[in-house]
Amino acid sequence: MYLSNIKSPHDIKGLSTEKLNELAEEMRQALLAKLSAHGGHVGPNLGMVEATIAMHVVFDSPNDKIVYDVSHQSYSHKMLTGRAEAFLDPAEYDSVTGYTNRQESEHDFFTVGHTSTSVSLACGLAKARDLKGRRENIIAVIGDGSLSGGEAFEGLSNAAEAGTNMIIVVNDNEMSIAENHGGLYRNLQLLRESGGEAPCNYFRSLGLDYVYVDEGNDIATLIETFRRVKDCPHPVVVHIHTLKGKGYAPAEKEKERFHWSMPFDLTTGKVKVSEEGEDYGELTGAFLLDEMQRNRQVVAITSGTPTVFGFSPERRQKAGRQFVDVGIAEEHAVALASGIAAGGGCPVYGVYSTFLQRTYDQLSQDLCINNNPAVICVFAASVWGMNDVTHLGLFDIPLLSNIPNMVYLAPTSKEEYFAMLRWGMQQTDHPVAIRVPGNGVISSNVPVDTDYSDLNRYKTTQQGDTVAIIAAGSFYALGESVADLLHKQEGITPTLINPRYLTGIDEAMLDGLKKNHRLVVTLEDGVLDGGFGEKIARYYGPCNMKVSNYGVRKEFVDRYDVSELLAANRLTAPQIVEDIASLLHQA
Amino acid sequence: MYLSNIKSPHDIKGLSTEKLNELAEEMRQALLAKLSAHGGHVGPNLGMVEATIAMHVVFDSPNDKIVYDVSHQSYSHKMLTGRAEAFLDPAEYDSVTGYTNRQESEHDFFTVGHTSTSVSLACGLAKARDLKGRRENIIAVIGDGSLSGGEAFEGLSNAAEAGTNMIIVVNDNEMSIAENHGGLYRNLQLLRESGGEAPCNYFRSLGLDYVYVDEGNDIATLIETFRRVKDCPHPVVVHIHTLKGKGYAPAEKEKERFHWSMPFDLTTGKVKVSEEGEDYGELTGAFLLDEMQRNRQVVAITSGTPTVFGFSPERRQKAGRQFVDVGIAEEHAVALASGIAAGGGCPVYGVYSTFLQRTYDQLSQDLCINNNPAVICVFAASVWGMNDVTHLGLFDIPLLSNIPNMVYLAPTSKEEYFAMLRWGMQQTDHPVAIRVPGNGVISSNVPVDTDYSDLNRYKTTQQGDTVAIIAAGSFYALGESVADLLHKQEGITPTLINPRYLTGIDEAMLDGLKKNHRLVVTLEDGVLDGGFGEKIARYYGPCNMKVSNYGVRKEFVDRYDVSELLAANRLTAPQIVEDIASLLHQA
Repeated sequence: MYLSNIKSPHDIKGLSTEKLNELAEEMRQALLAKLSAHGGHVGPNLGMVEATIAMHVVFDSPNDKIVYDVSHQSYSHKMLTGRAEAFLDPAEYDSVTGYTNRQESEHDFFTVGHTSTSVSLACGLAKARDLKGRRENIIAVIGDGSLSGGEAFEGLSNAAEAGTNMIIVVNDNEMSIAENHGGLYRNLQLLRESGGEAPCNYFRSLGLDYVYVDEGNDIATLIETFRRVKDCPHPVVVHIHTLKGKGYAPAEKEKERFHWSMPFDLTTGKVKVSEEGEDYGELTGAFLLDEMQRNRQVVAITSGTPTVFGFSPERRQKAGRQFVDVGIAEEHAVALASGIAAGGGCPVYGVYSTFLQRTYDQLSQDLCINNNPAVICVFAASVWGMNDVTHLGLFDIPLLSNIPNMVYLAPTSKEEYFAMLRWGMQQTDHPVAIRVPGNGVISSNVPVDTDYSDLNRYKTTQQGDTVAIIAAGSFYALGESVADLLHKQEGITPTLINPRYLTGIDEAMLDGLKKNHRLVVTLEDGVLDGGFGEKIARYYGPCNMKVSNYGVRKEFVDRYDVSELLAANRLTAPQIVEDIASLLHQA
Repeated sequence: MYLSNIKSPHDIKGLSTEKLNELAEEMRQALLAKLSAHGGHVGPNLGMVEATIAMHVVFDSPNDKIVYDVSHQSYSHKMLTGRAEAFLDPAEYDSVTGYTNRQESEHDFFTVGHTSTSVSLACGLAKARDLKGRRENIIAVIGDGSLSGGEAFEGLSNAAEAGTNMIIVVNDNEMSIAENHGGLYRNLQLLRESGGEAPCNYFRSLGLDYVYVDEGNDIATLIETFRRVKDCPHPVVVHIHTLKGKGYAPAEKEKERFHWSMPFDLTTGKVKVSEEGEDYGELTGAFLLDEMQRNRQVVAITSGTPTVFGFSPERRQKAGRQFVDVGIAEEHAVALASGIAAGGGCPVYGVYSTFLQRTYDQLSQDLCINNNPAVICVFAASVWGMNDVTHLGLFDIPLLSNIPNMVYLAPTSKEEYFAMLRWGMQQTDHPVAIRVPGNGVISSNVPVDTDYSDLNRYKTTQQGDTVAIIAAGSFYALGESVADLLHKQEGITPTLINPRYLTGIDEAMLDGLKKNHRLVVTLEDGVLDGGFGEKIARYYGPCNMKVSNYGVRKEFVDRYDVSELLAANRLTAPQIVEDIASLLHQA
């Protein structure tokens, strides 16, 4: 076993090709053992084992600096840079994050989890190097899927202009998370088919030198190529053709399914934990497909993550031209949705909260200034969403709700979600975003409104006095718990309110509360700063009503435990009731 | 005179080439008469007169739909679509906006003022058309400068994949606002030099059909070309080579100076109103150039607007490789700055508030999660900034200040601004943004701190009681006026506070105010929602302190008068004092 003895890239530099191939096999087995037990990015990592070994044989990390795009392919890099135990010892599996991370290793230069950023970040390292008069190699590693994002294009074009050393390894496994989308991919295909010789070459058109390697999983060829471009005085693209999922038959076959996987059975490839119960992604996909059949103007849009709203390959096929995957290109997705709405169509863009961040200006300019009636379903916008620091779903309320014209709705149940979605698709007055609940699919037998066009009308669900609890979206259930406990513990029957709208204030209702309430408590499933509760605090600021805003503190948390995060932010029902009691006794 | 008789594009369809050329001459004279008297985008509009005429001869607007990128080149389009009076009659000059605008005309499909969006928006119109089974032409008009933005790339690649009719007119005048930057522009040059025949072609590499027109200011050639591509069943790029500033010698010569101009003397080209007094752009450029000479790690970065912080062609030349223009590519600019800081350099990115919006995710992910010490100077972030709806500088506080790790500073004077800038460049702990004051360069002889590393320490500048006024940045002077008037009118000496930090709360100071203050007033030069004042309201929410937040209401305002906007938002000193008095008497 070589792998367990590798403490730094230095330890592989003298190995023969044969031994490096054995090492690759060990690494692949370690990846499969960990990923099948633990879950994670399977396909991208399996495909990059050989290239990672070759880079670390040829380049001198951390003096030479390798920047990984999105980090879905960085596990082999971690293994070779002192973190092998995290892949060999199950007790250590969680000692590394799923992404490159500066805190983990001097071989990681950035904490990265969003796509298309590597070349631009590498341009910065190259510029700093040039100003200091140093001469190390700067290497950016970017997958073909990440090339569809505008930031990657901006980086490539600027790398060419900078004109100094940079090696851009394009890992072309012919896939994004799902299949690739965009005219660019025809060019990559042409380049693969012509052995890199086609005269029309995207990378060369941006002024970059270019080398093609068809055997992107062959260590000897890769080493030879990297040696050739090492210390190149200008930027050069090394386009390597790799096999996503390489070495594990189920992943080679089902590339989309194995891009990222929950723990799975190594023999069959089947996911171990079957997902139970209903899921908003699945439900949304089924709903939209049904709507599409009734209304040929309905278009579902994704930016490279079709399953976020249930568009499996089967549903995509059924939807036909009523489903558009724009590749990883969130800016285009929002502008496209605005254009479709302007043309009289009915676009619904399904997107993760964390990736919606990539398109603030398009939301403001292309969509909201033009006030076009596109619908955006925002998923994993919750403390119960993804918990990696690069994938937090806690910032979309400040992001979206402070843009004029946007109507951002926070449903509290399955019935309310679909009523809001249906209304959003029918109305033609506003851009509408819907914060898909993050606390599981909860059915409610309370009747829900079908028309939300009378904006910013909150709904009182329990009439009480002294204390009013305004509990938004996924935290409505928490509001119910607080109300119950307050009754039990303090003998107070509070008023409970489902605000439904995150983008405005129900002034009439808030004024009405002044009569027999002393304290208004707001609960929101996201960061407090710039969020929903602060609007309530501002409204009551000049009068005697006391306001307590509950939500998450503004900070970057990483791989957090939800219960701990909630407790640390005093977001459990007993903590909130304790605070309320203390406030009431004070006054 | 033809122009005054043109009420719609229909009126030019039958004209001979000779008459169309006369019309072009009339339009050019009207443009020059208006722009020299009124100011506006000169060069881009002069270059597009012929192409606009040709488009309206060949295509059938508004059934065929023309989408203009950024709208800097849309004045001729306005003249031919029923809005000629706005260019012929000085009394009507302000009857049209400087941008395409849906409210103005059925020939304008979107309100647009930011770059690189046209192809994506046009993709939406094309998709809506296809779903409805219609067959009109969709035309996107995009300048070479706009091609550097990532959204344009995303649009082009997706247009190719969509595969149905779209005509993308690339107006190549060899310039952005300043000169172009990025490897892409070498390809445009190659295409021009080869008459469009070079096999390595950026547009073809994205899967688009392609036609080159060297005579981009020749109406007959353009008409012939547009006729050829009209009704094309797939997307095609028509790359036209035009002359920026065409027909006006000073603008042909000084292309950057005449991209946009204040009113100027038609004979000499000189700006009529000489700018008086000091200007933060100029001062910043001089300061940074000086710093660069002392410290070779200092890098000034712009995304296509170098003069925003005083980098005239002369200063750019002096700065050499310590100045980087990335083209219109804000995302790359922020990631580049983060990378330079990670590599030990000292990057300062100068950018307009409205364009900073284009890079929220890079601010969050590439910069703040990595906590790299890049500095961002945010200009025109004020009610006194640009007043077109697409260029408002009112949203950067919600945008920036709710991102963890970011330190957003609001200087109140020239001395404080440069002290903060100097500190930002010296420290290595945080990303630092500085909100350059929008209310003119005000010198203060109050000593300013040089060290801002003890975060969120507000500064009391006048000790008083009963009322505390926390007046941020450009509204500090308003705070002083309110304090004076409150003293004169109500006999109250309020406490006046310069918060300096927009990203956090000085809890100790706020707690201290509870002793002998009943009301805290916040003043901020931007939108209230998600902004600075709401954080103060939240902090005081649970206690007896009253809080009044002053700022601008969340809405899209267009071409507003500053005084009217201030009055409408109760942002004059007398209004605020009146409110304060009324609140104090109430209690």
